[in-house]
Amino acid sequence: MKNPIPRSIWVEKGQPDFVQIIDQRLLPHEKRVNDLKSTRDCERAIADMEVRGAPLIGITAAFGMYFAAIEALRHDDGITCLEKKAGFLKATRPTAVNLAWAVDQQMEVYRKHGFNEKLPGVLFENACRLMEEDAEMCRSIGQFGLALIEQIAREKNGGTVNILTHCNAGSLAVIEWGTATAPIYHAHQKGVNVHVWVDETRPRNQGANLTAYELGEAKVPHTLIVDNAGGHLMQHGQVDIVFVGCDRLSRTGDAANKVGTYLKALAAGDNEVPFYVCLPSSTIDWGVSDGVSEIEIEERNEREVKYMPGMLNGRIEEVLICPETTPAYNIGFDVTPARLITGLVTEKGVCEASEDSLTRLFAESTPKAS
Amino acid sequence: MKNPIPRSIWVEKGQPDFVQIIDQRLLPHEKRVNDLKSTRDCERAIADMEVRGAPLIGITAAFGMYFAAIEALRHDDGITCLEKKAGFLKATRPTAVNLAWAVDQQMEVYRKHGFNEKLPGVLFENACRLMEEDAEMCRSIGQFGLALIEQIAREKNGGTVNILTHCNAGSLAVIEWGTATAPIYHAHQKGVNVHVWVDETRPRNQGANLTAYELGEAKVPHTLIVDNAGGHLMQHGQVDIVFVGCDRLSRTGDAANKVGTYLKALAAGDNEVPFYVCLPSSTIDWGVSDGVSEIEIEERNEREVKYMPGMLNGRIEEVLICPETTPAYNIGFDVTPARLITGLVTEKGVCEASEDSLTRLFAESTPKAS
Repeated sequence: MKNPIPRSIWVEKGQPDFVQIIDQRLLPHEKRVNDLKSTRDCERAIADMEVRGAPLIGITAAFGMYFAAIEALRHDDGITCLEKKAGFLKATRPTAVNLAWAVDQQMEVYRKHGFNEKLPGVLFENACRLMEEDAEMCRSIGQFGLALIEQIAREKNGGTVNILTHCNAGSLAVIEWGTATAPIYHAHQKGVNVHVWVDETRPRNQGANLTAYELGEAKVPHTLIVDNAGGHLMQHGQVDIVFVGCDRLSRTGDAANKVGTYLKALAAGDNEVPFYVCLPSSTIDWGVSDGVSEIEIEERNEREVKYMPGMLNGRIEEVLICPETTPAYNIGFDVTPARLITGLVTEKGVCEASEDSLTRLFAESTPKAS
Repeated sequence: MKNPIPRSIWVEKGQPDFVQIIDQRLLPHEKRVNDLKSTRDCERAIADMEVRGAPLIGITAAFGMYFAAIEALRHDDGITCLEKKAGFLKATRPTAVNLAWAVDQQMEVYRKHGFNEKLPGVLFENACRLMEEDAEMCRSIGQFGLALIEQIAREKNGGTVNILTHCNAGSLAVIEWGTATAPIYHAHQKGVNVHVWVDETRPRNQGANLTAYELGEAKVPHTLIVDNAGGHLMQHGQVDIVFVGCDRLSRTGDAANKVGTYLKALAAGDNEVPFYVCLPSSTIDWGVSDGVSEIEIEERNEREVKYMPGMLNGRIEEVLICPETTPAYNIGFDVTPARLITGLVTEKGVCEASEDSLTRLFAESTPKAS
């Protein structure tokens, strides 16, 4: 199978002097490809959110380290220069775990290889390897999730399988396939009749901006709804399964994801709709036991609640949707307790949202009990 | 106690030749008062949604019938003219129950009184009486709901009582006080520390546009949140009680209200937060037994999902928030099953959301079993 839409980041064959990305700030209204030719370009792309989604940020930073090596080789004190640039890259979005991880991976390669003319090539190869690993992980999540959709399609005698998703855990957040969207794309390509309810996902509207765009490009039947509508749809049998992504999973299976995910999990539970969280195992935080009380939730700028960006007369504008003096509160994520999750779809297979199941599936990465 | 903000409709003392309303389409960005001087004006105000909220629509139509009588007296065939105008008024928003009810009430008065010069005065008095009855009903709901808030304030030793509300069941939807907001206004005026979480309430944003505006005018502490946030707040003990309005209540206590209400009821249940529905008894539909399967839910134009209105450079504009070709689905309401409702706050007191309790409280309006 082939990824249904262009990758979120790529290198043109034989042209390793620049990396290309889709400027996601302009989606879905304009599709602009930006060239990244320097560490600065990569920093800017991450800091200004031309790229978003933890895995994509990580890969962008890995290529940033490739440019950093090229630039450092031109300096008198190349090693200090390289270390400085690594620090700048890490500081662009300090909370993203994949960002620091990717930069550290590249620094590790540098330490093993040494600082010499071949370093850029080695870092480039390693960035490409990390990129392919991410793509493969998502493909695998898609394969395991596909089986869940096919099961429902059989139960419905080939009738349309209605899937609800929240936010964008799609191809644009990673390299290709996405996490929550990977099973959907695989099912669609295999000819299973699927239809996706796309939550608009206030306040940043990643569902309306990105998921609706992706599914449209991939020609997957879908319908945009407000975040308030999913409960009603589930009450009336219009949702067969829910797939969402995950920003951080406790070892007990509690899932932090875009705010509002918990409300959909409650509605799924109340209406016996299977609710699956799709994630690569790198998302599991083995140090967290109780997700609801232990995972810190990012508070963001109130402007995202009070103003809404969109297209007007060919330009992206922001309109004020409440009195100017109204105070607003903006939290980015919420935590869905494991008891509301039917299962976790990972690159190694589907398992229960519980410490036992996670430990069995990912035995090698589990810290030993003392 | 005094209503905290101007009424939604009023007559200046000694000036019965016109009725005044706040043009709610421009709120919260502009506060414009429109004069209604004819049946046409009243029809336009209802059809174009200068006024909204079932009770306010009803009262506007009642005054429309007053103007209709004045206009009919100038016609050769006055009675036919009056009947025609009654029909036009009823047709402005065909689904609103209070609209037809109010016009029928006025036609009943005309039939008893007869068609003569005194009819306009009699219809005017009756419109004023209906208006005062609505205000009194909401005041009474406020008094009964106040006791619930005071109880929590005592349990918190005078600490702030955090209330969550969805949509606008406020003063602007009725004549004064509102339904869900009435307990809040009464508590605030009595000096109880209250703080209100205001759901923005997509797709029409009545929370952001109207509830935030009302509470701001009344100086009640409040914070605007996206509809996705309430679950997280309840998980973290930041909501003490939920008050919502109701568009239609089954005799068994299932409540149809603005879409998304059901999701908040689920979160309240999961976190043991009391969830109250505030309504005048006219909202009870004694003919409906199972709200979820029997109450038909209005499907509205997809434009409300795809476009967002707001203020930009001093003008109200609409921005597109998804790809232009994305299909969208827009349902106006959902039904919260009685099992998720802690209690109903009515003008006659607080009761359980059950057929038994409702029948006991409203014995005289209950249809006799055959």
